[in-house]
Parts: sequence; C-alpha cells; structure tokens
Amino acid sequence: QSAVTIYGRVNTTVESSKLSGDSAQNQMRNNGSNLGFLGEEDLGAGLKAGFQFERDIDSTDGASAGYEAQSEVWLGGDWGRIRLGNYGGQSFKTIVEAVSLHNDNVGTSADWLFADVMPADHHIGYVSPDIGGLVLELGYSTKDDRQAVDGTRKNAYEAIANYDWGNWSLAAAYAKYGDANQWSLRALYAMGDFLFGGYYQRDKNGLLPDAGNRNNYRFVGIYTLGANEIHLNAGYADDYSNQSGSGATQWTVAWNHNLSKRTKIYAQYTALNNRRNGLYGEDLGVHTPGQDFRSFGVGLRHYF
Amino acid sequence: QSAVTIYGRVNTTVESSKLSGDSAQNQMRNNGSNLGFLGEEDLGAGLKAGFQFERDIDSTDGASAGYEAQSEVWLGGDWGRIRLGNYGGQSFKTIVEAVSLHNDNVGTSADWLFADVMPADHHIGYVSPDIGGLVLELGYSTKDDRQAVDGTRKNAYEAIANYDWGNWSLAAAYAKYGDANQWSLRALYAMGDFLFGGYYQRDKNGLLPDAGNRNNYRFVGIYTLGANEIHLNAGYADDYSNQSGSGATQWTVAWNHNLSKRTKIYAQYTALNNRRNGLYGEDLGVHTPGQDFRSFGVGLRHYF
Amino acid sequence: QSAVTIYGRVNTTVESSKLSGDSAQNQMRNNGSNLGFLGEEDLGAGLKAGFQFERDIDSTDGASAGYEAQSEVWLGGDWGRIRLGNYGGQSFKTIVEAVSLHNDNVGTSADWLFADVMPADHHIGYVSPDIGGLVLELGYSTKDDRQAVDGTRKNAYEAIANYDWGNWSLAAAYAKYGDANQWSLRALYAMGDFLFGGYYQRDKNGLLPDAGNRNNYRFVGIYTLGANEIHLNAGYADDYSNQSGSGATQWTVAWNHNLSKRTKIYAQYTALNNRRNGLYGEDLGVHTPGQDFRSFGVGLRHYF
Repeated sequence: QSAVTIYGRVNTTVESSKLSGDSAQNQMRNNGSNLGFLGEEDLGAGLKAGFQFERDIDSTDGASAGYEAQSEVWLGGDWGRIRLGNYGGQSFKTIVEAVSLHNDNVGTSADWLFADVMPADHHIGYVSPDIGGLVLELGYSTKDDRQAVDGTRKNAYEAIANYDWGNWSLAAAYAKYGDANQWSLRALYAMGDFLFGGYYQRDKNGLLPDAGNRNNYRFVGIYTLGANEIHLNAGYADDYSNQSGSGATQWTVAWNHNLSKRTKIYAQYTALNNRRNGLYGEDLGVHTPGQDFRSFGVGLRHYF
Repeated sequence: QSAVTIYGRVNTTVESSKLSGDSAQNQMRNNGSNLGFLGEEDLGAGLKAGFQFERDIDSTDGASAGYEAQSEVWLGGDWGRIRLGNYGGQSFKTIVEAVSLHNDNVGTSADWLFADVMPADHHIGYVSPDIGGLVLELGYSTKDDRQAVDGTRKNAYEAIANYDWGNWSLAAAYAKYGDANQWSLRALYAMGDFLFGGYYQRDKNGLLPDAGNRNNYRFVGIYTLGANEIHLNAGYADDYSNQSGSGATQWTVAWNHNLSKRTKIYAQYTALNNRRNGLYGEDLGVHTPGQDFRSFGVGLRHYF
Repeated sequence: QSAVTIYGRVNTTVESSKLSGDSAQNQMRNNGSNLGFLGEEDLGAGLKAGFQFERDIDSTDGASAGYEAQSEVWLGGDWGRIRLGNYGGQSFKTIVEAVSLHNDNVGTSADWLFADVMPADHHIGYVSPDIGGLVLELGYSTKDDRQAVDGTRKNAYEAIANYDWGNWSLAAAYAKYGDANQWSLRALYAMGDFLFGGYYQRDKNGLLPDAGNRNNYRFVGIYTLGANEIHLNAGYADDYSNQSGSGATQWTVAWNHNLSKRTKIYAQYTALNNRRNGLYGEDLGVHTPGQDFRSFGVGLRHYF
C-alpha cells in the first residue's frame, strides 16, 4: 500500500463587491478551496509512478462536483515524466499563477484578462528533467477527444519552457486549439525583500471566436516585511482587432499577514474596468458590455 | 504538511415502515452516514487554525453530492474562535442533537418536530472560550448571501449558550431568519445510570410561512446497563396559531448494544402521529394531511 | 479513531478504436479508475466491524458522482460476516472478474457478454468463513427496496460458492431478479507459468426482457515470464432463444509489463463481433444491430 497524501486549501473571504449600475453586495466568497489526494511509488532503477486526484469545493456552501480539478497518472525517470489524464492549463499555471501571487490567483482578484486556450481534460504530456535550470513541457489532446468533449474536431497542444537563472525566473508558453492560439512570456526578478515581474501575451480568438488579435500585459510588485506582504498587481488588455472597445484594465492591491507557511489572513481591493464593449469578468457577474467590478475583501486561507 | 484526520459514520438499518393508508414496506435505510476530513495547525502564541470538510453518503446506494454537510475554516485562540463557511444549524445541534441521543438524531426516529430556522451556508460565527462551564456562540449570514441563495433578502442570525454545571447540562438558543424565528431551552440531568432531559421551543413561522406561533416539547429518558442502553423519547408540537389541527406527536423507544465506543447494534420503534392537518415527516413519505408514520428497525452503526 | 486506509486505482489508456461503419477514433480512455476508503475495528471476542466507501472517477476528465461503487458496513466473526449497504455484483466478481484478468475487467476489453442480474444497492448479505477452501455467500434485496429504486416490485437474491483446491479455483453463482436469472460456473487452473480458465453461464432474460434463454462461454489463457504477462481471452454468446441472430463473440490479446505489484504498462487489442441482430457493447458506442467494435490501446495502471 502506498502512502497517500491528503492536501487541500480552504480560503474564504467576506467581501463588499459592486458591479457598476448595481448596488453593493456584502457576501461571503469562496477562493479556490479544494481537496486532493496524491501519492508516488518508487519503482526502482530511477523509475517512479504516481497519481493525483483533486476536487474543487465551494467553501461557502460545500458544493462540489467530481475530481475535475485534476485526475492524473504519471510515470517518470531521469528522462522526464509522462503525464496522462486531466491536469489543467499548464500555460495558465506557468504564466499567470506565477505572477498573480497575492492570493493564488483565485477569487475576485484573480487575473480576468488572460486567454487560456488549452483544455485540461484528455491530456497527454511530457515534462523534461531540469537541465541546468531549464524545464520543458509539452501537452496534447487529440481532435477525436476534443470532438467527443466539445463537438469540435480540433487538436489542442501546448509547449512551455521555464528557466530559472540566478534571481530571475523566466517562462514562455504557446498553445493552440483550433482557430485560437496564444503565446506568452513571463519574467520575475527577486531583489532582497522585493519581487517584480509580469507577463506579455499575444492571442488570437483566445476568448471569443473570430475576435482577432489582442495584446495583454500584466505587472506585479511585492514587498515582504517579516510576516507581512504588500502586493500590487495591474493588467491591461488591448481591444481585439475585430472588436473595438473590447479591452479592459484590472488592478489589485493586497496585504497578506502570514500566520505560518500554511495559514494567512489578508485584505485586498480589486478593480476591473471594462472599456465600452468589454465583457471581462462574467464569473464576477459582469453581464452588460462596459460594466465594471470592484471588491474589497478580508479573508482567511489555510493549507492542509 | 498537516495531519489530516479522516472520520465518518456508516449507519444502516433494515426497517419495516408503514404510512397510515399505505401498505407496510420492508426497506434498507440510511441513517446519516457520512465521510469527513479535518485538521488543525498550531500557529504558536496560543493561536490555532483548522478546517473541516464533511459530506453525506447514502449508505444504501452510495449516492452523495458535495461537501454540503460542512465546509469550514477557522481561526482560534484564548479569545475564542472565528468560524467561516458552511457549518450547519448550531441551534439544532445544541438543542435537538443533545437530547435525541438514541441514534444521533438520524434516520426515521430523528426529531421531526423541531423548527430550525438558521441556514448553514455562508455562515460567519464566533464561539467563546469556556468560561467556567459557559460557552457562547454567535452566527450570522448576510441578507446579500441569503438573497443569492434563497432569493429572499433577509439577514439570518443566531445566538446560543451552553452551560455545564455539575450533573446538569443546560442550553438556550435563539435564531431569526426574516419573518421566522425560534427560541428554545434544553436541559439534561445525569443521575447514576439514568439520564433525563428535554427541550422547549417557541417558534414563529418556523416551518411554514404565515403559520403563526407554536410550542414544541421534547422529553427523553435513558437507562444504561453495561453495554446496553434503553432510550425513551417523546415529542409534542402544538398547532400553529393560524393553522388548526396542524400539530403532531412523536415517540420512540430504542435499545442500543454497544460493541465498542465506535460500533453498536440497535433496535428501535418510532411513531409519528399528525393531527388532522399535520404534515410532519415529509421526508418519511408523509404526503396527506394527518397521515401517520411508524417504523421498526434494526441496525448497525460504525464510526471511523 | 480508526486507521482509515485510502486506496484506489488510476488506469488510463490511449486507444485507437473503430466501430464498423464509422471512422477510427484516437482517444484517451478511462479504465475503471477509482478512489476508496476502508477500515476495520477489532471489537474483541473474535468480533470485527468495518466499512468501505468507494467512488469511480473518470481519469480522462475527473468526472465523478458519489460513492456508488461501494458503501458498506459489516460485522464479522468466526461465524462469517454480515454485510449491509451497496456492494456490487458478487456474481459478476466471482465469475467474470476472476477470469478477465488482463486488465481488471475494465475499459474496452472488459467482458461485454456476461449477464449480471443482481443489483448492487440495498444489499444485505452473509459471507461464510473459509471452510477448508470453501466460502459461501448469500445476498438479498427486498422487493420494497427494488420497487423504490426500479419501480418494479421484485425480490433480488443471489447465492455464490468459491472453492480453492490445490491448483484449482472453482466457483458457482446463481442470481435471480424477477423474471431474469442466471447461473454460472467458473474454473481456473494454475500450471507453472501458465494459468487456464473460463466460465459457462446460462441466463434467462438476463440482458433483455422476454429474450428467453442463452448460453455464454468464456476462455482465458495467461503466460507469465518474469515481469511480463501474455493474455488471451475469448468469449462466445449464443443467440437468445426468442431473438435470432442476437449473439456475439469477443476476443482480446494483451501484454502486461509489471513495473511493480502496483504499477504496470500494457498494450491490448480487443474485438467484439455482433451477429446480425446483436447489440453488445452499447457502452462502447455500438448503436446499430450487428455493429462490431475494435480497439488497440496502450496504458498505464497505478494502484495506490
């Protein structure tokens, strides 16, 4: 029998949020709470196998479906690792989650501007070993799988590179799914108690069909003082070339107080401003072109 | 990584049940089976943080939704504990579950007469430390959360006090949700191998809109002899002031044989008698005003 | 608190499959991946109690419902074991899973010809102790439970015998659910690096109402060489007596390479050939009478 690790996150906020044109709402919100199981087995001769199952749980009411967050089996060795199953948006993780550090890129202050075109399910991939700081990752989902899931007969694939070099952490990602594609570059630079970074993304039809091309920028600055962190995070998305006024900006300021490595209390303010035809933030309730969203929240996050 | 505790209950009966006017049914029934995960972290300086996720599982067919039974994160210290998330009916737990001891207040012999007006989800609360036997608890859910969940724009709140004093265990609870409210008092008295107790509840519109006021009484007596327990449990609910003949009585006699602290076998008989317009026990199949329910069951309960 | 064991299986293939008349499909497929929890408690005096909860998880997208795979509580002693709850198809396990050994009888190469008439839910059963290699098992589900679940008022019951004798493993199973019934015999014989076996089944209305009687045969041969196994598996189902041309054949050849007891990589080819009116393999996509199915797959299976 293997040693299975149970892990997860409970992250709950109380927020005062406002959509422009609507009245302010005081609500409890879930921030990416989840529960997972993982394990690995040493097969000898440098080989290992392992698995990971992870589910999302809404911490405000307990609602939860299946293990759609991750369901993976892998086989690895000196030559890298083969991954099979459902494991999500590696471009998203590499580019966005590495930059959106103030709250694990969940909840109302998550990055709403990135275009993630790679599906998570029916995913076969290869991850290289660490080659002097460089790690490459490839992913693929067949057009037959996509047709079964989405009804569209298109291959999906991605290629990702991460490179750590001194105080720098660099990454590039490319993904393509039918007519949609995106490529992006990310950089982080650590300087004492400061961390600076950002990404640039160029996508085509990434969020809407036939929308055309778009540029998307994100910047982040973090200052750490003992158990406290101050985060600034700002993003700017151009109009899609075929849709004038479809752009948006988003910025967040956040304070984290770490009670331990696993537990923090925090406060944050985020503002998402759509241009006159922008519809970013539908999950936040944005339903009218050009509608804006603001939220101030305080929260408690606990990893287990 | 924290030490996560897995816990739960499997409690399954075979019962012969009868609704008045229908034929008797021999069926296997679930009695509140569940599965949960919890953990806590010592943050130093007297602080602790922790979480709990719990799901219900129908032990007769395995049916189970998400973690609606509990999904909570908390932060505590000498000053008490702040709770955030979904954690259910504290009035119900304090008053009913403390009295309905023969089978954890689950299954056909659960208390069908108590009016629980406090919702479990989107719950923020405070629990005091133990002050010489006295523990206070406050809970709240904003009208914005309630509107998002129920479509009704009403605050929900509750206040609870528990007091242990020698052989006595006393409690009081008040909850209000819009036009509905309830207050209740509970007492238990231990005397050698005997335990006596009961509660009184006064509610307004607690189970039906515009129903008016109602009194609800419950009495319990337990005799323990070694591994065996004999339980008597009886309840009486008045008519609602605006609904004549809406009352009911319920009584249960049960024998428990404890094979260990965690595992018991048991037999029980319960009878729910509605007055001519009473509709208590809808979850038991009561569908006609005045219909009665009876069940005799034998079961096996195992905590893990 | 008990020691709860977490266990499961992740088994994912990449397959090229073809339904006759359709084009070939390259797809990732789930092969019976699951996650479970079990435990037992020593009650003293030879008594034990325990539980098991198990859920299926689609490893290609994480989809998962509740604990329908198993939800059971049991009490056992020298006299055998009483089982209560949801635990599936013991005839199926005893006869089919013992023979269909190349891939745990899951995925496209599972046995599609066996008629399993015993439902899993609302199941009460008794398992005898091992009496010189002989183990008996009885199962029952009341007509009231079946009516509640299926709308049909019929008792369901089964009786199973397993007998291990030297190099032989023998089993017999009988199950009846209303108008449907089946009896079956299974034998396995181990001879050095070889294992031979098969089953014979006779069922009435087992897969279709009013279909009449049918014979169903399955043969298996396995050759083990170190970490490698070669499997041959072939089945033949007669026409149902009231439905001419309703029969089918199925055969599979598989190679397993065991990286450990828990982890294997494998390749397999399976072919399901329906006679002109056969509809075996609906779960594989067979939708036209007489349609055939073929699949070649490679996979990775990991137990945890």
